[in-house]
Amino acid sequence: MKKFMNEVSKVEDEMILGLVKAYPQYLKKLDCGNVVIRSKRKENKVALISGGGSGHEPAHAGYVGTGMLDAAVAGAVFTSPTPDQIYEGIKAIANDAGVLMVIKNYTGDVMNFEMAAEMAETDGILVKQVVVNDDVAVKDSLYTVGRRGVAGTVFVHKIAGAAAERGEDIHKVQAVAQKVIDNVRTMGAAIRPCTVPAAGKPGFELADDEMEVGIGIHGEPGTHREKIKPANEIVDLLLDKILSDIDYTGGEVAVMINGSGATPLMELFIINNRVSDVLKEKGISVYATFVGEYMTSIEMEGFSISLLKLDEELKSLLDERADTPAFKA
Amino acid sequence: MKKFMNEVSKVEDEMILGLVKAYPQYLKKLDCGNVVIRSKRKENKVALISGGGSGHEPAHAGYVGTGMLDAAVAGAVFTSPTPDQIYEGIKAIANDAGVLMVIKNYTGDVMNFEMAAEMAETDGILVKQVVVNDDVAVKDSLYTVGRRGVAGTVFVHKIAGAAAERGEDIHKVQAVAQKVIDNVRTMGAAIRPCTVPAAGKPGFELADDEMEVGIGIHGEPGTHREKIKPANEIVDLLLDKILSDIDYTGGEVAVMINGSGATPLMELFIINNRVSDVLKEKGISVYATFVGEYMTSIEMEGFSISLLKLDEELKSLLDERADTPAFKA
Repeated sequence: MKKFMNEVSKVEDEMILGLVKAYPQYLKKLDCGNVVIRSKRKENKVALISGGGSGHEPAHAGYVGTGMLDAAVAGAVFTSPTPDQIYEGIKAIANDAGVLMVIKNYTGDVMNFEMAAEMAETDGILVKQVVVNDDVAVKDSLYTVGRRGVAGTVFVHKIAGAAAERGEDIHKVQAVAQKVIDNVRTMGAAIRPCTVPAAGKPGFELADDEMEVGIGIHGEPGTHREKIKPANEIVDLLLDKILSDIDYTGGEVAVMINGSGATPLMELFIINNRVSDVLKEKGISVYATFVGEYMTSIEMEGFSISLLKLDEELKSLLDERADTPAFKA
Repeated sequence: MKKFMNEVSKVEDEMILGLVKAYPQYLKKLDCGNVVIRSKRKENKVALISGGGSGHEPAHAGYVGTGMLDAAVAGAVFTSPTPDQIYEGIKAIANDAGVLMVIKNYTGDVMNFEMAAEMAETDGILVKQVVVNDDVAVKDSLYTVGRRGVAGTVFVHKIAGAAAERGEDIHKVQAVAQKVIDNVRTMGAAIRPCTVPAAGKPGFELADDEMEVGIGIHGEPGTHREKIKPANEIVDLLLDKILSDIDYTGGEVAVMINGSGATPLMELFIINNRVSDVLKEKGISVYATFVGEYMTSIEMEGFSISLLKLDEELKSLLDERADTPAFKA
C-alpha cells in the first residue's frame, strides 16, 4: 500500500483535522469525534446533516457551509458513522425549525442515522429524513436493500440546503429533497480499484483490459465486467441505463460528471464531451454541468454520470448561493 | 495504457470541447485550435493570457473567467502551444489596455509566447509578460534554464487577474504579478507516475517503496529518489526547502496543497494537517488555504506545497471575487 499517510489508525482523524485547519472560516470540529459543523451557526432555519463513511471526500464535510449542510459526520473509511456521533451532530445544530438528515441508502447508514434520530427525539428535537438512492446500476447490492445512494446526494445537499437557507419549513425542505431524489439518477464505471488503508490491499482486482460497469462508491460490484471500451461507448452504456429509468425527453437537466478520486480531469472532460453530445441528440437540454470530484472512492479510477431532471423550483434552488469548501455557486 | 479516452490523437481536442460544453457561461473556444476565451469579453481592462501543454487540468482553461484569465492556450499533452495558437489568443482578447502573458518557465513555452508577442506587437498590440518560476526543487532542469513554473502560477492568475479586473494599468498588473512570483515558492513529491497518451507508457518508474522528491509537473526528475516516508516527514522535507528559500518568519501566507491528478483528497488533507502545524510552530500565520487539484500532471499520484508570502495589497487582491470554472472566490 503506497499512500501519503502516517499511521493507518489516524487516517480519518488527521484528514478531518487537515480539512478543518484548511477552512476555519467554514468549519469547526466537535470534540466528540469526526463531526464537523459550520463555524458560524445559523439559527432559525432547518438544519441539514449528512455523512457516511470516510473515503468519499470532499463528501460530506466539504459541503458544510452556507446554502448546503449544517453538519457532516464521518465514520471510518467506508464504514457508517456511529449513532452516538450522529446524535452529537444533530444536537450541535438543532433548533426550533428542526433537523433534516440526508442519508445515502446503505443499510448501516440508515440504521445508525435512524437510531440517532430516536435519541434526538427523546430530547425533544424535531428530526426528519430522506434517503438518497440514485444509483440505477443494481437493485439490491452488497450493502443495501434497494438502490445505493451515490453522487446524486450532492444535488440533494445543494438544493435542500438552498431551501433551508431561504427559511422554508421542515416539511417543505424535506419535500424538495425528496423531489431531487425522485428526479436524479446516476451510474458509474471504474478501471482501477481503491485500497482501504486498514485493509492494506485493493478491494477488488481488474485485469489490464477490464472495467467494472455500474460499480458502487465502495468499489462494490456493479452489473458486470467487460473489456474496456472507448470512452464514448462507456458513456453510451451508462447513459442508456440512466435514460431508460426516467423519461428525460424534452426536459432540462443538471449534469454531474463525478471523478472517483484518481481519474484525471482530462478524462472527465472527454467524458462530458460525449454526454453533452448525446443529450443534445436526444433533445434533452443541459441547464448546468458540474465536472470534478464530488463523491469519491479514495483513489479509485472511475467516474459516474448523474442526471437531475429540473423544474422551475429546482432550477431556482440550484442557482441560489452556496459557499462551502468544496462547492461554491 | 488504461484510460477513459477515445483516439489518442483526439485527446486534447475532445478534452477542450468537453470543458467548453460544461461551462458555456464562462468559456468559448476559438476556431483556430485549443484556445479558450471568456464567453463574455470584458473591454477596457488589461487582458491576461496563459497556457502551456495539456495534462495540467484545470490549468489553464479552467481559470478563464471574471477575476482571473481572459484566454488560455492548450498545447498537446506536456507540449508547448505553438506561437500561432498563442497569437490567435492574444488577438482575441487584445484591447487598448494591453495584454499580459503569464508564462510558466519552460524553454518551449517562453520561446513560443515571446514569438507570439512579437507577432502581436507588429499588429500594434501592447504585450507584456511575466515568467513564473516558483519550484525550489532544482535550479536548472530537463526543460528549463532556471527554476520551473508550477502550481504557484495559479496565485499569479488569481492576483494579477484581480488587479486587471479592478482596472489597474498594464505596468501595475505586471508589477503585481511579479510580486507574486517573487514571493511564492513550491515543491512537490510523487509516488506514482503518469502516462502521456501519445507515449502509451509511464514517463518514469518508481519501485513499490520509492518516491521522487522535488518532481516536476511533467514527471521530470526532482532532487532525488528515496524510500517513501510517513506523510508528515515528506511534508517536513519539502517545507524545509521552501522555508529556507524565503524568510517567511512572522509573516502571513497563502497555502496551496495541490494534488497531481490521482492523489485522493483524503491524503491532501492529511498533508495539510502537518503543513498547518509546522507553520504554526514556526510563527507563520496562514491567511488562506487551498486544497485540491489546481495544477495536475494527468494521473500522477503526488502533491506540491506552495507558500505565498502576503502583504496587504496581495491579501486584498486574493480576496477579490473570482468566478471561473475551477476557482471561485
